[in-house]
Amino acid sequence: MKRKSLAHDCCPVARALDAIGDWWSLLIIRDALAGTRRFSEFQRGLGLARNILSARLRKLVEQGIMRTEPAADGSAYREYVLTEKGNSLQLVIIALLQWGESSLFEPGEPASRLVDRLEGKAIAPLRLMTLDGRILAPGDLRVMPPNAPGG
Amino acid sequence: MKRKSLAHDCCPVARALDAIGDWWSLLIIRDALAGTRRFSEFQRGLGLARNILSARLRKLVEQGIMRTEPAADGSAYREYVLTEKGNSLQLVIIALLQWGESSLFEPGEPASRLVDRLEGKAIAPLRLMTLDGRILAPGDLRVMPPNAPGG
Repeated sequence: MKRKSLAHDCCPVARALDAIGDWWSLLIIRDALAGTRRFSEFQRGLGLARNILSARLRKLVEQGIMRTEPAADGSAYREYVLTEKGNSLQLVIIALLQWGESSLFEPGEPASRLVDRLEGKAIAPLRLMTLDGRILAPGDLRVMPPNAPGG
Repeated sequence: MKRKSLAHDCCPVARALDAIGDWWSLLIIRDALAGTRRFSEFQRGLGLARNILSARLRKLVEQGIMRTEPAADGSAYREYVLTEKGNSLQLVIIALLQWGESSLFEPGEPASRLVDRLEGKAIAPLRLMTLDGRILAPGDLRVMPPNAPGG
């Protein structure tokens, strides 16, 4: 089904979902954040058909989330690299990861984990704060429509 | 296209994406977090066909992300309410919102905004930290495969 485009929606969540594309695109971004760069590596890691992977990568490049560049080893391959815009999707991936860890695994069930590279320690759950550092509870938020005064 | 199920993947990101379903489901969750409870309200807000909305809500209930309950006003309607598991998707929505705001809007373009309910102030960008409060840069992370020692 062709989705209605949300690219010009005034809600940043809707616009973000439209730009990213679909779940496969987020898994491609996950693998790119972990260092995957070549078409064949993405294909092997994700188990995706070539035509589907190819369409997803093309859309990510069109959206400015990835770019292609010559292979680092001087071979004829092109490599897919996250742009700054793409790299900043890391927090979306981490929010999904933390929700998945806490909500979708049985105690003791094997899960891949994210740790800090320096000390190998677990990272803290993401938290909502005001700009001046006050911690917010989930119910402490309000959505302001576009062009509302204040803030 | 029927997706391969990722419900038993060892990666929490893949499992999270599988459980949520699709973009529409995240927009339903966004609206539920903002207070929407009735089928007709979700339909009006999202502009979705009844059968599509109905299938998405059913999947969210099956996944334990939403539950139904009798209408608060005593009428015959059922209302859709986020469970605790569903409420904790708020951080995923906020990560998408912050990425959308910073990457997909022109300066000055009208956007709906999230503020803190008490003072109406902007909320801080989500940040990566270790459990003991050290702020991490995007490159400071490493993925550990399941059953790896340490952590």
